[in-house]
Amino acid sequence: MNLTDDLAKIVGPTNVLTGADTARFTQDWTQQYTSDPIAVVRPANTQEVSALMTYAHANDIAVVPVSGNTGLAGGTYSTGAVAISMDRMNAIREIRTDARIAVVEAGVVLSNLHDACEAEGLVFPLTLGAKGSAMIGGLLSTNAGGSNVVRYGSTRGLCLGIEVVLADGRIMDLMTELHKDNSGYDLCDLFIGAEGTLGLITGAVVKLFPKPAAYATAMVAAPSLREALVLLNKLQIATGGLVEAFEFMPGNYVKAHLEKIEGARPPFEDHHEINIMVEVAATAPKDCMPNDDGSIPLVDQLQETLAEMLEDGSILDAVVAQNDTQRREIWKRREDAAEVQLDGRPAVHTDIALPTDHVPLFFERMAQVTAEYDPGADDTCVAHLGDGNIHYSVFPTNPDAAFKDGYMERIEDLVKSLGGSFSAEHGIGLSKKPSMARRKDPVAIDVMRAIKSALDPKNILNPGKVLPDQA
Amino acid sequence: MNLTDDLAKIVGPTNVLTGADTARFTQDWTQQYTSDPIAVVRPANTQEVSALMTYAHANDIAVVPVSGNTGLAGGTYSTGAVAISMDRMNAIREIRTDARIAVVEAGVVLSNLHDACEAEGLVFPLTLGAKGSAMIGGLLSTNAGGSNVVRYGSTRGLCLGIEVVLADGRIMDLMTELHKDNSGYDLCDLFIGAEGTLGLITGAVVKLFPKPAAYATAMVAAPSLREALVLLNKLQIATGGLVEAFEFMPGNYVKAHLEKIEGARPPFEDHHEINIMVEVAATAPKDCMPNDDGSIPLVDQLQETLAEMLEDGSILDAVVAQNDTQRREIWKRREDAAEVQLDGRPAVHTDIALPTDHVPLFFERMAQVTAEYDPGADDTCVAHLGDGNIHYSVFPTNPDAAFKDGYMERIEDLVKSLGGSFSAEHGIGLSKKPSMARRKDPVAIDVMRAIKSALDPKNILNPGKVLPDQA
Repeated sequence: MNLTDDLAKIVGPTNVLTGADTARFTQDWTQQYTSDPIAVVRPANTQEVSALMTYAHANDIAVVPVSGNTGLAGGTYSTGAVAISMDRMNAIREIRTDARIAVVEAGVVLSNLHDACEAEGLVFPLTLGAKGSAMIGGLLSTNAGGSNVVRYGSTRGLCLGIEVVLADGRIMDLMTELHKDNSGYDLCDLFIGAEGTLGLITGAVVKLFPKPAAYATAMVAAPSLREALVLLNKLQIATGGLVEAFEFMPGNYVKAHLEKIEGARPPFEDHHEINIMVEVAATAPKDCMPNDDGSIPLVDQLQETLAEMLEDGSILDAVVAQNDTQRREIWKRREDAAEVQLDGRPAVHTDIALPTDHVPLFFERMAQVTAEYDPGADDTCVAHLGDGNIHYSVFPTNPDAAFKDGYMERIEDLVKSLGGSFSAEHGIGLSKKPSMARRKDPVAIDVMRAIKSALDPKNILNPGKVLPDQA
Repeated sequence: MNLTDDLAKIVGPTNVLTGADTARFTQDWTQQYTSDPIAVVRPANTQEVSALMTYAHANDIAVVPVSGNTGLAGGTYSTGAVAISMDRMNAIREIRTDARIAVVEAGVVLSNLHDACEAEGLVFPLTLGAKGSAMIGGLLSTNAGGSNVVRYGSTRGLCLGIEVVLADGRIMDLMTELHKDNSGYDLCDLFIGAEGTLGLITGAVVKLFPKPAAYATAMVAAPSLREALVLLNKLQIATGGLVEAFEFMPGNYVKAHLEKIEGARPPFEDHHEINIMVEVAATAPKDCMPNDDGSIPLVDQLQETLAEMLEDGSILDAVVAQNDTQRREIWKRREDAAEVQLDGRPAVHTDIALPTDHVPLFFERMAQVTAEYDPGADDTCVAHLGDGNIHYSVFPTNPDAAFKDGYMERIEDLVKSLGGSFSAEHGIGLSKKPSMARRKDPVAIDVMRAIKSALDPKNILNPGKVLPDQA
């Protein structure tokens, strides 16, 4: 057989890339993983994906699905495999406004879906810095999180149905728009977040929400994380749970942002250590309809809460966005995180989740860990504080892999002692496999292996990802 | 070996029941399934469940988990098996008010959890007619729905973590309280809703919510289901999504309720065909704090919406509960459904789900189906209209099984043509297996079988349930 000829018969010769032509699909965002795939193929539809898998299964060829390639855990590393790019499967098949659902293909870019929904007065609330490149297939396969999870949940919670091509090429149709469906095992949620190791997600039915008619967005400086969490709770109570984003940036993140991002401006006149970005959003007329003086009730509510807390000293400063330009500037500071934080220094990056009320304790104890292990180390973070997800990064004085691993283990020890997880929203891919082996319940790993073997007995679907290597 | 002696060594002799002593565990609520189990065992804790499964696995003994036994699909039928009752594992281990979670054992009765949460100013929002008997283990294993799904989702969406005993007795610890956790496959959601066929759920971490500070509850008579759905949308927009329950009862349901339930009173002076129970609930002070005249903004909002619709004729009548007694009377009418609807007549009962906007079409086309298939048949229903779940029942003139099956197939045809599901919230058990075989994507069924074989190779966990029989 000639592999590229055979692949070309399925997807057409112009859609089989080899050698230098694969470059734009093979360099991951973190620059840590450069792949050398056998070929990159670009199917046009589910039937072609099915034919590709039938062929791969018959010929024992490993395949790796690639969509926007913005993952941070090496999940698309494809050396020795055929990479299947979903980028041509980019149709938004349908938006049903009354039913508030969209039917999309795996290659739809997130920001394109955002735009299409907004045109209908709706939102798909998943949002993250990579939204201009990230595609639905990858967002589903990693169960992506982002900045609106505190209100809307992770990707899994936003998806009603999926279409999957199995290891042997069969197409599984779970494309439902129902909010209640108890017809057997929950396969949809099993394939979501499986990072392409159980099947290839080719399409999805996702939930949409009414577009908020009013937003109120602010930067707030707090004296401590505990006070910041008090602010979160006060706002949730006052608004009845309308907080859409509650993000924490420490002082050194804000400083690095000013240094690295052109045109960046400081959030406050003074420098503060605890900087919070908060956004509340509402759809109900009672919250959004302007008062007689033109003010918006939702904005008033945020301002009143902040004014009270400023007065009693439980926050230090606050700036409420007065227009959409100011709102976008606030969001951009947060969305630049990957560029600010992944700056090439030897680092231990994390994606940890904690019970929200344990986050302050994490930072206090982490300072002790560093004082003992590497007193000269720097650290920083950016955090979805509202849902307890912290992207904590430490820059050790010793760049050796073993020293960094030792740091990671100490962070994991601390996270585990606080009831947290080593992986919140980026998935496992390659980079989190050691943590998975150390920290996940071994019985759960055995169950995952049993499922993987049952559904992909030839181990051709994104092999070597997610599950720890066996001794 | 002597089975009962061996079981007694694990759980103690008083907790192994045989013969007549098993009666209270073996009669299901529908009276359709009476079981003759080898024994009923009542373990005290997870370790005993683990020991029971280790023993059952070594000796090829089938086991069937039983909790409240209020299921409607025969999922606890246990003839020829050892039934494992969770009723002694009834501890609420912890309620963490700040984190808004409860840690519970499988045998906790739903209404006991309700009471414990209310004492802390919180709610566990899952609610259904059987709440006084249904237990957490069964609610999770069937992914139960109920009347608050429109606001809070089904049981799966209310659960953060579970503990499971596997077929071979190993204990899998997925007990997390994290809202974000991407550490491998979503095993939690796989075991939830698996009806005990993949493992036995012994404990769970569930989400709690702030207890609403105000409720507004009404009975509304609408001229049609389409107008009723307009009311739902108007209320969701006006309140910003605060509708907690939106239930439909046809005229003949209300009539039967008056006849069958002692002390029942009619909802309106006149008889109406489309009777809606609606409840909105709020936590925010702006919605709940009394105005100067003592009125509650949330109640005002419901009353205003209803008054406008009465005026323009889009609803026919409305009665708003003026106190908790009236509210409870409205709820009781709905919660009596099982007693009203399952009256022993030969019937085809369903648990269908439809896209909400297709519900009116279902009833229109169903009338045509009946006109063709059995013009003399009666029908009734009760429906969670807010989430598209209809418990439609038809009483055919011909009680033969084959005739009833033919009816069921026609209903399923119609449901499928409208994008619906034959199973919304009751699960599959035994009674929905024929529908499962006919209607579920065959590839999905194959995937379910592969998972079942991988996790329970001896087929000892609730055998014969959920998955269709193989030819």
